[in-house]
Amino acid sequence: MLQNLARDEMARRDWDSGINTTVRFALVGLGGFTEGVVLSAIQETDYCTATVGITGTPETGERLADEYNLKRVLSYDEFHDGEGVDDYDAVYVCTPNALHLEYAESAADLGKPVLCEKPLEATTERARRLRDACNEAGVTLMTAYRMQLEPVTRRLREWVRDGELGDIVAVRGSLDIDVPTDQWRFDETLAGGGAMMDIGIYPLNTSRFVLDAEPTTVTAQTASPREIEVDEHVAFQLSFPKGVTAHGQASFEAQPKTEFQLVGTAATVSFSPAFSVAQDRTVEIHKDGQMTELETNWGHEVIEEFDYFAHCLETGTNPAPDGDEGIRDLEIVDAIYKSVMMDETIPL
Amino acid sequence: MLQNLARDEMARRDWDSGINTTVRFALVGLGGFTEGVVLSAIQETDYCTATVGITGTPETGERLADEYNLKRVLSYDEFHDGEGVDDYDAVYVCTPNALHLEYAESAADLGKPVLCEKPLEATTERARRLRDACNEAGVTLMTAYRMQLEPVTRRLREWVRDGELGDIVAVRGSLDIDVPTDQWRFDETLAGGGAMMDIGIYPLNTSRFVLDAEPTTVTAQTASPREIEVDEHVAFQLSFPKGVTAHGQASFEAQPKTEFQLVGTAATVSFSPAFSVAQDRTVEIHKDGQMTELETNWGHEVIEEFDYFAHCLETGTNPAPDGDEGIRDLEIVDAIYKSVMMDETIPL
Repeated sequence: MLQNLARDEMARRDWDSGINTTVRFALVGLGGFTEGVVLSAIQETDYCTATVGITGTPETGERLADEYNLKRVLSYDEFHDGEGVDDYDAVYVCTPNALHLEYAESAADLGKPVLCEKPLEATTERARRLRDACNEAGVTLMTAYRMQLEPVTRRLREWVRDGELGDIVAVRGSLDIDVPTDQWRFDETLAGGGAMMDIGIYPLNTSRFVLDAEPTTVTAQTASPREIEVDEHVAFQLSFPKGVTAHGQASFEAQPKTEFQLVGTAATVSFSPAFSVAQDRTVEIHKDGQMTELETNWGHEVIEEFDYFAHCLETGTNPAPDGDEGIRDLEIVDAIYKSVMMDETIPL
Repeated sequence: MLQNLARDEMARRDWDSGINTTVRFALVGLGGFTEGVVLSAIQETDYCTATVGITGTPETGERLADEYNLKRVLSYDEFHDGEGVDDYDAVYVCTPNALHLEYAESAADLGKPVLCEKPLEATTERARRLRDACNEAGVTLMTAYRMQLEPVTRRLREWVRDGELGDIVAVRGSLDIDVPTDQWRFDETLAGGGAMMDIGIYPLNTSRFVLDAEPTTVTAQTASPREIEVDEHVAFQLSFPKGVTAHGQASFEAQPKTEFQLVGTAATVSFSPAFSVAQDRTVEIHKDGQMTELETNWGHEVIEEFDYFAHCLETGTNPAPDGDEGIRDLEIVDAIYKSVMMDETIPL
């Protein structure tokens, strides 16, 4: 309930029945996110450990193996060949988007469940192949939508479901970062798109998640002022049933700031930072003309995400953000790019 | 400059050359806004005084005449007939939208300049007639876009012009209020529309004002959950040149909250409350990864607006928010309602 903002209530793991497992992860791709966020987050999980690193740069592998006590480092070819398969139980894929499919396919062939970064692949068609490969091999697939495990976001979804905000009027989310253009996410072939694919997908997926509803139309604009091949700025507007609208905005070149807000007839809730990996968030609740502010400082959503995935594996549960969920967003992203190209509103 | 947030700098009247006039106003329509906001604001102006009240309810007129020392109270017919014309220099029109035209026409016939509330009229065609009547009589017409005189908003516009925010990426503004449906603004005939006409026009006009640019397309959604004849919720997205997008959202039935934000490559600035008449606003400036917060508490924008109008009259200056400005927004509002009806993106 909105009145109950105690840490224990806000941070509770509503999905956690308690398990006695440690899932050993092979991490495919030791880039910035894996090194800067995932490896240290896994150390703080209850149910996970990182045992294998897979990389194209052996020096990085050795350095991280030392720092995080990994059992072994494999090349991409060694991973495909099934080397070290007894040293891990599950595979986390954090490569450029267009490479997700091949590593997920190898994991599926090896009978290993897959936690795959978002977007699920660089195209909808490849994402479907990825999902099908996991289905056919009978391995669990989760799309790594960390916001779906982020506690404030989960509480928001419950409040919406329970009517705590009244009727929802509008949703808005923005994710602005400022990054140089020498990264794979600016490469159309590897990324499949620009700001929309890489970061716009956060307000998109999070809007669908908290509303527990599917949009019916989308309109979008993009811009690429630095004259690169992908979109650097994107703004989109989604229509949801019952007259609810959701607005998303994302940029690769803007003053860094992320926020998410739900406007309701009975209460309006916003939090920031929203889509950045963070320990500390400020939640603002406006209700009855009063504003309540809560500073959260519990474990961040990547810890939650890995433990949730391990919990799903142990309990035989299909992860809520599964392959279909990842594909659904890519279908909407396709409609967003179509809207930009045709300068039209696209029915979904 | 962004670094200079001293009150004297933020609150300065960049338009004020200093005049020695007191403009005497006749206030047409003594409803909630005139009584609750305008009469006391005029008392705090440098260049204005209220001398005449025009109303259909004499009791209200007498009460307010006593409280605010008005020289006389007229009925609407008396105003049309030119009674008391020597007791005022200018006319402020604050009636239901669809009545603006007739009072502005009478004012013009009497040779009195007109400060007319927004939206300029209930339809674009009537707004054009209103403008033409003032033009033909040679009287000054200002559309009462108070945000254009609000100091934070004016600074924002200067910062955009001077590149202090870098390139602008996105703009968003929201105005959510919670009002009962027994008001004229829920009457299609009197208001000409719902949340979009009455309050959505604030983020629309303010976006155009701070960007000093005109949108090229618009897409919008509305909803009327209480089953009334006008829109109660509206969300719209505008494309501006150079890839800039602006999002507006307004509602007659939501938790009350107003905010405005400009996202730039060099800085992002937001303030709240934004579109509510307020003495106190919180301005947040994000720059170089740092957030600076400023609490403003200077005289509010209605004082500024009246003094600006008086200054225009004395100096023979055409007000920046003139009749054409009011008409331009109504043309965009027409496109917004067309977008809703056709579920399409509308070129402007």
